[in-house]
Amino acid sequence: MALYQHILIAADFSNHTDMVIHRAKALAAANNNTRLSLCHIVEDFPLTDFAYEPMISVDADMRDALLNAGEKQLSLLGEKFGIDTDSQWIEFGSPGRDIVRIAEENNVDLIVVGSHGRKGIKMLLGSTANAILHHASCDVLAVRLQDES
Amino acid sequence: MALYQHILIAADFSNHTDMVIHRAKALAAANNNTRLSLCHIVEDFPLTDFAYEPMISVDADMRDALLNAGEKQLSLLGEKFGIDTDSQWIEFGSPGRDIVRIAEENNVDLIVVGSHGRKGIKMLLGSTANAILHHASCDVLAVRLQDES
Repeated sequence: MALYQHILIAADFSNHTDMVIHRAKALAAANNNTRLSLCHIVEDFPLTDFAYEPMISVDADMRDALLNAGEKQLSLLGEKFGIDTDSQWIEFGSPGRDIVRIAEENNVDLIVVGSHGRKGIKMLLGSTANAILHHASCDVLAVRLQDES
Repeated sequence: MALYQHILIAADFSNHTDMVIHRAKALAAANNNTRLSLCHIVEDFPLTDFAYEPMISVDADMRDALLNAGEKQLSLLGEKFGIDTDSQWIEFGSPGRDIVRIAEENNVDLIVVGSHGRKGIKMLLGSTANAILHHASCDVLAVRLQDES
């Protein structure tokens, strides 16, 4: 059985992102012609609960600011690890759902996602990693991140 | 970063076990000296709810029968895939908890477990795979099994 052809890294920009990428790169290096991609989803958190009129423009500005900041971070990671800009995705949305969708649209056969320690992993598995693991139609590697404490 | 040194396959003896093992073997083959191990936990289901006296002896007999049957299946898998008997574990217990414990006791750095399709994975993640993913202190690869339907 061949190893993976297209590995998608779900980057969360935490201190541990490098470790997750190193692991994905080691897997990619084990196979010829493996494509390595990076994605980050800026979580959509609708501002619905305020007393005055909806602040749509501020909300949109904030989204743009967050997306721009994320794009820069993703681009820095791409440069650092040699991942082309055409293999980088950043979107606004629901991390679990949209990472799975990006994977499906791009024939990804492995999603690599970080998972924190015993305490942390429960929190993480309750959101992004959990959603990916439940909904992905491809393999998922949960990289255990060693807490630095 | 080196690839994995000791990969533990959580075998459930379903039709998909071969696929999970093939994937684990491909990962092991990508690295020199990677040890590949197999484990299966026969789920403990205490018989506590019956009207007559506890049928301890039957229960113990049944456990032995299940363990023996499992041992044979594990041994056949080991032969088929070239995994030594000293890298095979079969136990009676809680699959999630005991697979994680076996992994910790044997310096496993990757557990490979099968996960079924969109419907099935939810069920599976509710039990074995979920427990492994939440509690493992090492990386976990969830291999997506394609349903044959």
